[in-house]
Amino acid sequence: MAQTVTAAVIIIGDEILSGRTQDSNLKTIAEFLNPLGVEVREARVIPDVHETIVKTVDVMRTRHDYVFTTGGIGPTHDDITADAVAAAFERTIDVRADALAILRPWYEARGQEINEGRMRMARIPAGAELIHNPVSAAPGFMLGNVFVMAGIPSVMRGMLQDVGHRIKGGAVLHAHTVRGAGLREGDIAEPLGALAKARPEVSFGSYPWMRLKGKTTEYGVNLVARSRDPDLIAAALLALVEIVEAQGVKPEIDPKKD
Amino acid sequence: MAQTVTAAVIIIGDEILSGRTQDSNLKTIAEFLNPLGVEVREARVIPDVHETIVKTVDVMRTRHDYVFTTGGIGPTHDDITADAVAAAFERTIDVRADALAILRPWYEARGQEINEGRMRMARIPAGAELIHNPVSAAPGFMLGNVFVMAGIPSVMRGMLQDVGHRIKGGAVLHAHTVRGAGLREGDIAEPLGALAKARPEVSFGSYPWMRLKGKTTEYGVNLVARSRDPDLIAAALLALVEIVEAQGVKPEIDPKKD
Repeated sequence: MAQTVTAAVIIIGDEILSGRTQDSNLKTIAEFLNPLGVEVREARVIPDVHETIVKTVDVMRTRHDYVFTTGGIGPTHDDITADAVAAAFERTIDVRADALAILRPWYEARGQEINEGRMRMARIPAGAELIHNPVSAAPGFMLGNVFVMAGIPSVMRGMLQDVGHRIKGGAVLHAHTVRGAGLREGDIAEPLGALAKARPEVSFGSYPWMRLKGKTTEYGVNLVARSRDPDLIAAALLALVEIVEAQGVKPEIDPKKD
Repeated sequence: MAQTVTAAVIIIGDEILSGRTQDSNLKTIAEFLNPLGVEVREARVIPDVHETIVKTVDVMRTRHDYVFTTGGIGPTHDDITADAVAAAFERTIDVRADALAILRPWYEARGQEINEGRMRMARIPAGAELIHNPVSAAPGFMLGNVFVMAGIPSVMRGMLQDVGHRIKGGAVLHAHTVRGAGLREGDIAEPLGALAKARPEVSFGSYPWMRLKGKTTEYGVNLVARSRDPDLIAAALLALVEIVEAQGVKPEIDPKKD
């Protein structure tokens, strides 16, 4: 069996927990990691509290191959992630020349002063490698197996471009979906459960959906098979097609959706 | 000082961790709880794994006043939340007459059989109170301080209507935003940090934003003050207005945004 490589995502910020901001970084990171053969196994949303960040990073970095944090690396007083990650690794942290060499020309070219707040963004833990920020210059960093990235989605996506080459992935988890429009989960629960029992080496999921179209509600079920073995998944896909057809529904296969 | 009541949210489902589905339930629950005086302090996204659900529920229910789970209470084999919550509380679980009395007429009215899968949705832990589901009948439940709800956002929102009256909240955390268009966080980091240090009883946050409008990128900073004391927050709001004005920018106050 091919190797499984796992990751945890830590979303840092009071604004996500208060409902002020809708997180989208978890989905972006998961979709980025899937084809690299890295599986996100857990995610935590935590507040801007030093001790909480330190402890969460420390637990996650020993439990998973990779950890991704987003949020808390800007110039203001509530941006405390870099210091907390340094503390989790028991490293010192200070303004670093390599980070300042990126920030200084960026602000000078814009006629903005590098003040105390902006200097904060050059605080990088000792031994960390910088992550390039093509959007707004202030870098993220990698320390051990932890990638520390910005919270703003566009900046975070920019930083991911400098992450892939540092990842040693495992076998890719393939996922295929069979869509059964007009089906309810209750219609297919029994044969799906029997299939899951008969093929324990494949993971099966069932995801009901509904949406308003004009005045009618459309609904259906997406059945998903996941495996690292392409042969197993092909066979599983056929079995899912049979389950949907047995209900008198024409199955649709959407190769783009995982 | 008024009492602080806290909550944790547990989002259960492989489909969130894989990036297949964008969670929106955390934001909905947080916005629902804020005016009740309940503060979401942490959230975890976990896979459909029995032991993980049991352990996470157990840790969260002792750490917080309330716990909200979403996902995993449907009719299929991967819907294992009810059994896991029962295990966390060391309760028995079986098909319950009160739940079946809701499901049976619902399916009969639609000419659908109550098969084995649908019977699963009547499995409720001993001692739990049902949560009404106005959308698709199958109930959620409350056991101790844990509210177990559906993962589909529309169903989850329906269930929340039967949750509020069971919550004993604390003092409401008020939050007000001052918006500074055209400002960068680095412009206001120093005075904001000084303000946060001078008023430790108020929590200050800084949230940069940017968006494309036509061919230009608009950007700015939202400065947020949070407190349980309305008088403190009024004073803090004035101080934030001064910080924005000192940059030559006209502050906007959006009372609807927290």
